[in-house]
Amino acid sequence: MLGRPRRLALLAEGRFTPTEAKTAVGVLRYRPAEVAAVVDSGRAGRTCRDCVGVGGDTPVVRDVAAAAAVGADGLMIGVAPQGGALPGEWRGSVLDALARGWDVLSGLHEFLADDPQLAAAAAATGARLLDLRRPPARRPMAAGRAAGLAATVVLTVGSDCNAGKMTAAVEIVRALAARGARAAFVATGQTGLCVGEGGVALDAVPSDFVAGFTEELVLEAARGADYVVVEGQGSLAHPAYSGVALGILHGACPAAMVLCHPVGRTHLRVSAAPDGFAIPPLAELVRRHETAAGWVRPARVVGVALNTHGLDEPAARAACTAAARETGRAAADPVRFGAEPLADALAALRRDHAPAA
Amino acid sequence: MLGRPRRLALLAEGRFTPTEAKTAVGVLRYRPAEVAAVVDSGRAGRTCRDCVGVGGDTPVVRDVAAAAAVGADGLMIGVAPQGGALPGEWRGSVLDALARGWDVLSGLHEFLADDPQLAAAAAATGARLLDLRRPPARRPMAAGRAAGLAATVVLTVGSDCNAGKMTAAVEIVRALAARGARAAFVATGQTGLCVGEGGVALDAVPSDFVAGFTEELVLEAARGADYVVVEGQGSLAHPAYSGVALGILHGACPAAMVLCHPVGRTHLRVSAAPDGFAIPPLAELVRRHETAAGWVRPARVVGVALNTHGLDEPAARAACTAAARETGRAAADPVRFGAEPLADALAALRRDHAPAA
Repeated sequence: MLGRPRRLALLAEGRFTPTEAKTAVGVLRYRPAEVAAVVDSGRAGRTCRDCVGVGGDTPVVRDVAAAAAVGADGLMIGVAPQGGALPGEWRGSVLDALARGWDVLSGLHEFLADDPQLAAAAAATGARLLDLRRPPARRPMAAGRAAGLAATVVLTVGSDCNAGKMTAAVEIVRALAARGARAAFVATGQTGLCVGEGGVALDAVPSDFVAGFTEELVLEAARGADYVVVEGQGSLAHPAYSGVALGILHGACPAAMVLCHPVGRTHLRVSAAPDGFAIPPLAELVRRHETAAGWVRPARVVGVALNTHGLDEPAARAACTAAARETGRAAADPVRFGAEPLADALAALRRDHAPAA
Repeated sequence: MLGRPRRLALLAEGRFTPTEAKTAVGVLRYRPAEVAAVVDSGRAGRTCRDCVGVGGDTPVVRDVAAAAAVGADGLMIGVAPQGGALPGEWRGSVLDALARGWDVLSGLHEFLADDPQLAAAAAATGARLLDLRRPPARRPMAAGRAAGLAATVVLTVGSDCNAGKMTAAVEIVRALAARGARAAFVATGQTGLCVGEGGVALDAVPSDFVAGFTEELVLEAARGADYVVVEGQGSLAHPAYSGVALGILHGACPAAMVLCHPVGRTHLRVSAAPDGFAIPPLAELVRRHETAAGWVRPARVVGVALNTHGLDEPAARAACTAAARETGRAAADPVRFGAEPLADALAALRRDHAPAA
């Protein structure tokens, strides 16, 4: 990951749960061989599978020293807190890792390399502070170029932030690849950057260039691909994140969208107003995304990707059936039941839109 | 402006036209006493009024030395090129100004203070490189707070970039103030920052925080104001700038919007695809903005602000009448004929929404 093989300790102190430790869960699900341990003192002694449902027997340990004892040689910040600051109580763990000469990988908005204390600690041992969200210096301007691609561009969009957009994108790529299609994943957020190869954290670039970076990533990924599957960010419904969501939508110019939703979540995650914003019905979200896409290039929501975590299997299957009925689109929990229904819908759309021979 | 009284030379070499030198024109219109000269060698010897219709007898001069001869003591970059890089042929003028010890004010995305050659030249004379677009270090998260204000929040939105949103906002504030209302202007772009007091260049902040900074600016401006008039950025119709436009819309949570449009422009300014994107009809743009606003807080487009530059007066008045008929809203060219029709519409909306006594 990110330049060389690593054995990471994932820092998730006090927050190693499926909903709070989004980055740690993504890395454990898709890069398990690169994780030596998770640091969360209150859950030390348990396994990752036990805490978050993925990661198998990878141990949860008390601190950085204990992670070193099981073979870790690098530290990654495993959470994505709103606002993106380093939780103060984690500073000691970062300093401990740097003192051991470990590289520290962070997807926070607050760049660790710009922190004088941390920078000095890194310099003292030759360790590196790798800020995944730091934007490239380029200033690409979007111009709707992705609308002209022969590849089918797919964007995962969400009913909220932290709704499963990255996971759905990866699972769709896998399902498409399993049937022999050439499918590329485009990482646009901190967890996607850890899981994929390349990409840009679009929520951290200057807002004028969100669409331009998206377009650049899509054009690059489209070389030799039948499908380009772009991880969306934010949500058109979210008062803080709607702008980045729309910038990605208009930069990617997708032909198809997949709407991601965690079953049972009723209100948007808005820290200062936790009950202030109800999530609209799925059918309304489908309309909304198709409307907004059409401002630059018409696109269809072909399916719904649900996260049914916490439901028993009959209830999870019933939720998929209900979502399909409500929206008139394919619906699946891609992690639990596979992304095949979504891949089917994409293949059908690609077939219908193929240029005449 | 920006800390102390100045006599500025506005650098607009080769581009001192109403459409290309947006920042220079804004400063000449609203801060004429602070401008000593405009630098554009090909137009040297003419007046500002002659070149761009504002700025009276302020001279256009050949170079920085000629600007010094008429009393300039600072340099401001007077254009806002797409992509925001410093045109290479302007570097010599910036270096000349710095050698004279002049501060250089820039609203470019490319930060002049980060350029080693320019930074060294500034250090040599004690001059300062003031990058107006550099984002504050804060990371505010929007939460729809502006929807709860007693003040009436107004957002100018555009059919395109460079459509007159800043100018319309300033003219509306003036018209409201003229009738005794307490109206505050919120600057959100490089020209607005030069014309107003305070503000943040929202197109340059990390995209996650566009709405948060907007909300912060609106809440601050609302103290003691009846109306808060926010300068919009970009356009929901523009493939590169729709994200910043939506972020500002959802951060500001306006009750009212004013749609700005340059009469006669038929296609969006998309540098790589100049004829690729037709501007939708005004009535469609009204619907689109009201739809997108409603995703967070319902709002009404109360009027249309036209820029009728280049039309004779009967044609300009006919254009206003046609826009009013097409949209069913008030319409005016606020620069040419005054913003009173727009102020009337806002006052009516505020009256209708006033809390019962």
